[in-house]
Amino acid sequence: MAVEIERKFLVKNHDYRHMAVGSTRIMQGYLSTEIRATIRVRLCGDNAYLTVKGANIGSVRDEWEYEIPVDDAMRMLERCAAGAVIDKERYRVPHEGHMWEVDEFHGHYEGLVVAEVELSDENEEVAIPDFVGKEVTGNTRYYNSVMASADNLRVVDGRLV
Amino acid sequence: MAVEIERKFLVKNHDYRHMAVGSTRIMQGYLSTEIRATIRVRLCGDNAYLTVKGANIGSVRDEWEYEIPVDDAMRMLERCAAGAVIDKERYRVPHEGHMWEVDEFHGHYEGLVVAEVELSDENEEVAIPDFVGKEVTGNTRYYNSVMASADNLRVVDGRLV
Repeated sequence: MAVEIERKFLVKNHDYRHMAVGSTRIMQGYLSTEIRATIRVRLCGDNAYLTVKGANIGSVRDEWEYEIPVDDAMRMLERCAAGAVIDKERYRVPHEGHMWEVDEFHGHYEGLVVAEVELSDENEEVAIPDFVGKEVTGNTRYYNSVMASADNLRVVDGRLV
Repeated sequence: MAVEIERKFLVKNHDYRHMAVGSTRIMQGYLSTEIRATIRVRLCGDNAYLTVKGANIGSVRDEWEYEIPVDDAMRMLERCAAGAVIDKERYRVPHEGHMWEVDEFHGHYEGLVVAEVELSDENEEVAIPDFVGKEVTGNTRYYNSVMASADNLRVVDGRLV
């Protein structure tokens, strides 16, 4: 079990693309978005994962991730996912000792780009890259689980409204 | 992915105990009981499992089970399970070519005993042992997921009311 601490931001430009060391296409859906447990199925390149996330306590939450067969994940996404399947390209962007993950969304959320950084404790200092804009940590609208289940969210000027 | 086909019955007496080839204490809780996906965490003797079950179509449903570390399961049951944790002793009872599973419930459901048999297809014939009583296949009240989340079910004369 890992305790996940992360900060999330909007981005100001596409400079992360030439700073990136790689990118992966991700498709994910949610089997549950209950408060006590979010259950995510993710296809990530040639791998698939089932992830259980507990309730948020500030920016900290329990997280357990298990690798599962790709065929299982595909059938779960098709049969069992509640709401929409999220489709995004994830860039890995190293910057001053931290690995940032920048998600470019496709489909319904085309035009939204979100940068995340994972921290080892809540008070850890992190250098913010120039492409990073407004912080949205804790704004539930930007949870992928909410984006998958909401029917009234759309992208305007790079933000969710 | 396995497709699960099973029939479920009440029992008339305790004869299954001396017919059993073994028994295991099971504790389980549910991270989600949504219609499209039920997510179960189960501690079963010294092993633990995370199980995803799809929607029922008659007596057939998708089922995927993954072994997970016992410590993960214990923390999930403590932190993430919705409703009550189900506590039962499961007896394995061979009878004329089928392995029956007989669950004796403890705690809130003390006094309830349910027998299940898994079939390889919906039309497979199965010999019913003498200890087996009324069939309750498809009665949602006897789903462990419903028993875990219901707050108005109790056991009267060996049945759920």
